[in-house]
Amino acid sequence: MRAYLAGPEVFLPNAVEIGAAKKATCAKYGIEGVYPLDSGADVTGSDKALIAFRISQANEALIRGCELVIANMTPFRGPSADVGTAYEMGFARGCGLRVFAYTNTMWKYTERMRWSLGPNPRENAAGDLLDEEGMFVEGFGLWDNLMLDGAVLGSGSEVVWHPSQDRGRFHKLDGFEACVAKAAKMLGLKP
Amino acid sequence: MRAYLAGPEVFLPNAVEIGAAKKATCAKYGIEGVYPLDSGADVTGSDKALIAFRISQANEALIRGCELVIANMTPFRGPSADVGTAYEMGFARGCGLRVFAYTNTMWKYTERMRWSLGPNPRENAAGDLLDEEGMFVEGFGLWDNLMLDGAVLGSGSEVVWHPSQDRGRFHKLDGFEACVAKAAKMLGLKP
Repeated sequence: MRAYLAGPEVFLPNAVEIGAAKKATCAKYGIEGVYPLDSGADVTGSDKALIAFRISQANEALIRGCELVIANMTPFRGPSADVGTAYEMGFARGCGLRVFAYTNTMWKYTERMRWSLGPNPRENAAGDLLDEEGMFVEGFGLWDNLMLDGAVLGSGSEVVWHPSQDRGRFHKLDGFEACVAKAAKMLGLKP
Repeated sequence: MRAYLAGPEVFLPNAVEIGAAKKATCAKYGIEGVYPLDSGADVTGSDKALIAFRISQANEALIRGCELVIANMTPFRGPSADVGTAYEMGFARGCGLRVFAYTNTMWKYTERMRWSLGPNPRENAAGDLLDEEGMFVEGFGLWDNLMLDGAVLGSGSEVVWHPSQDRGRFHKLDGFEACVAKAAKMLGLKP
């Protein structure tokens, strides 16, 4: 079983080491981890937009070659998951893959938004939370936008959450391992 | 030609009116606009998580029934696009649809991040911008994460950008119409 390891840890200074650690964890559970940085995309030349496009197409090809995705939905540069990870979760579901996911936070989406909006946030007549621009904040009790949670539920699983300290949340792999274990169990793999 | 209209405007107080306006614009260019709120998902009952799941599955079904997506990549609650929109762009590409997109900003991703990080942001030895957690900020000159821009390039198009005032950026439809016109032209449709 090949699992594409989606997540924003590719932006860490030690992205390669984190990828190796994730692949080692997968191997313990009988899963072959496929890391975005292993795509073999041609990153030479001076045309940055072209390099970026080659990487995006190589990542899509990697996903097509997998049976599942393990996605890191930890909030990244705002209240939601990394958009690249969200895109890859959608791409995988469109291709018919199963998507498993974890998030290194104990706060659900609405709670994170409420926290970021400070005291006395705006609400509509129905008591729904509104953001600074008056836009409705989903109050479904989910970890993120309903398309993301829905991808995991639609794969027969649930988002794994793990409380992490803010600054350590992209380095700690406890939530990741719990998610891999959950996926392996569901897929009938033996560690 | 049926186009799924992905974007965070579903969270606006006047989401239904915006959807009607978008569909009217599509019709001018020979495109049938399909709006997420038209999915017919069963939103009755007290189980909010179940309602959310029904909506996510209904949206996926709507996308499967379209030939293209017109996505609103305008930055939403942070430097990036709405993650639900990102997911839907990926889902569409996984299903083999063409994805067209627009963004109501004149600032590219790296510029938006540089602005949000204030004066004297951290950089690595190679001069790449780092965020507050020391994570690499992509400097490819794109509008957002390379998977999103890549979806549009892979569809044979380019992201349409339109400068908007901050508070009006989810209401103005000039960028949307320019994107619809671009898609219609590429698809050989006559207005």
